[in-house]
Amino acid sequence: METNKTMRETTINLPETKAEAKEKAPLLNSSKAIAILEPPNRGTKKGIAIGDFVLRLCTIGATLGATVTMGNAGAVAPFTTRFLRFEAQFNDIPTFVFFMVANGIVTGYLFLSLPFSTICIVRPLAKAPRIFLVIFDTAMTGLTLASASAVASIVYLAHNGNPNTNWLPFCQQFGDFCSSTSGAMVGSLLAGTLFMTIIILSAFALKRN
Amino acid sequence: METNKTMRETTINLPETKAEAKEKAPLLNSSKAIAILEPPNRGTKKGIAIGDFVLRLCTIGATLGATVTMGNAGAVAPFTTRFLRFEAQFNDIPTFVFFMVANGIVTGYLFLSLPFSTICIVRPLAKAPRIFLVIFDTAMTGLTLASASAVASIVYLAHNGNPNTNWLPFCQQFGDFCSSTSGAMVGSLLAGTLFMTIIILSAFALKRN
Repeated sequence: METNKTMRETTINLPETKAEAKEKAPLLNSSKAIAILEPPNRGTKKGIAIGDFVLRLCTIGATLGATVTMGNAGAVAPFTTRFLRFEAQFNDIPTFVFFMVANGIVTGYLFLSLPFSTICIVRPLAKAPRIFLVIFDTAMTGLTLASASAVASIVYLAHNGNPNTNWLPFCQQFGDFCSSTSGAMVGSLLAGTLFMTIIILSAFALKRN
Repeated sequence: METNKTMRETTINLPETKAEAKEKAPLLNSSKAIAILEPPNRGTKKGIAIGDFVLRLCTIGATLGATVTMGNAGAVAPFTTRFLRFEAQFNDIPTFVFFMVANGIVTGYLFLSLPFSTICIVRPLAKAPRIFLVIFDTAMTGLTLASASAVASIVYLAHNGNPNTNWLPFCQQFGDFCSSTSGAMVGSLLAGTLFMTIIILSAFALKRN
């Protein structure tokens, strides 16, 4: 509505300036009029929207990788005997289950958000899809970072243990399991960082008119 | 700069409209001119800025409360003897130390952000301070939620333990300690939620022109 108003104003203004500068350079003046009719910063906004789309694809890679890595995390202890088998799996620890569910949800959301991001590329001046994306992006950033840091504190315990609470580390016995879960955690932290970049980019896209 | 331009345009337009409608209703017309000079949605933006300021104060309360509660968390086990004293303190667990530092940083940031929020109230159309706030708010949301969920996973362990990894719960012995840390965690989660609301409000403030 605002852009419409300014456009109307400028078209009202045009005859005046044309009349004033008719003798000097009419060609230059008409090209100026076209530049005024085209909304400003359309190109910048389109660039931001494309960056948003690419970042979303990267984030999908990070969260999908984290989900799959966590889902496949498992190790058999080296001291397995014929009758006793010591195994570690991600669903031994509830936090890891939460991590997998959360990252699965975020991956699903990211796939669903791609069409909206495409709308932002096609129509860079539309603000409704961008606001919609900002709201859900913020919630999903929270979910991603929460799951990543919850797992980080458990992975730290698994590596170092805590003598004060008598929680012993188990990473020496289950090395594969620990490295898998650490990798998944890093992927999710990366996704959280990418999400924060997406939010800041969206804020810039909303700022430029 | 953008608003300056539109205002200059409207002041250029004013004499024309006045000359046209001088006979009809000069009083009505001049009030219309004032309405044009006043940028649209200024009131809404001011309302959003005031809401932002109030939410920031609430968030300060939440993070400060969380920091202080965690710092004072401590309990002596009921089976203390004359020679042995079983004590639990927040710095027995590194995650709790991280939580306290993170919440302290966030509280400090929030105090520093209040002047910028005030600028947004005084000048609702200024976009630079709002973008500045969005960038740092996003980072601080990440820090708050990360610290809260890292502590959440430890508090869960302290309450329920994990038989698969042989980590035993200790909340039955140190009830006070556990309730303090749980309270601090809830405060920090609340702060994270308030922060997310602030980011979404900022997006709306940037959207309306």
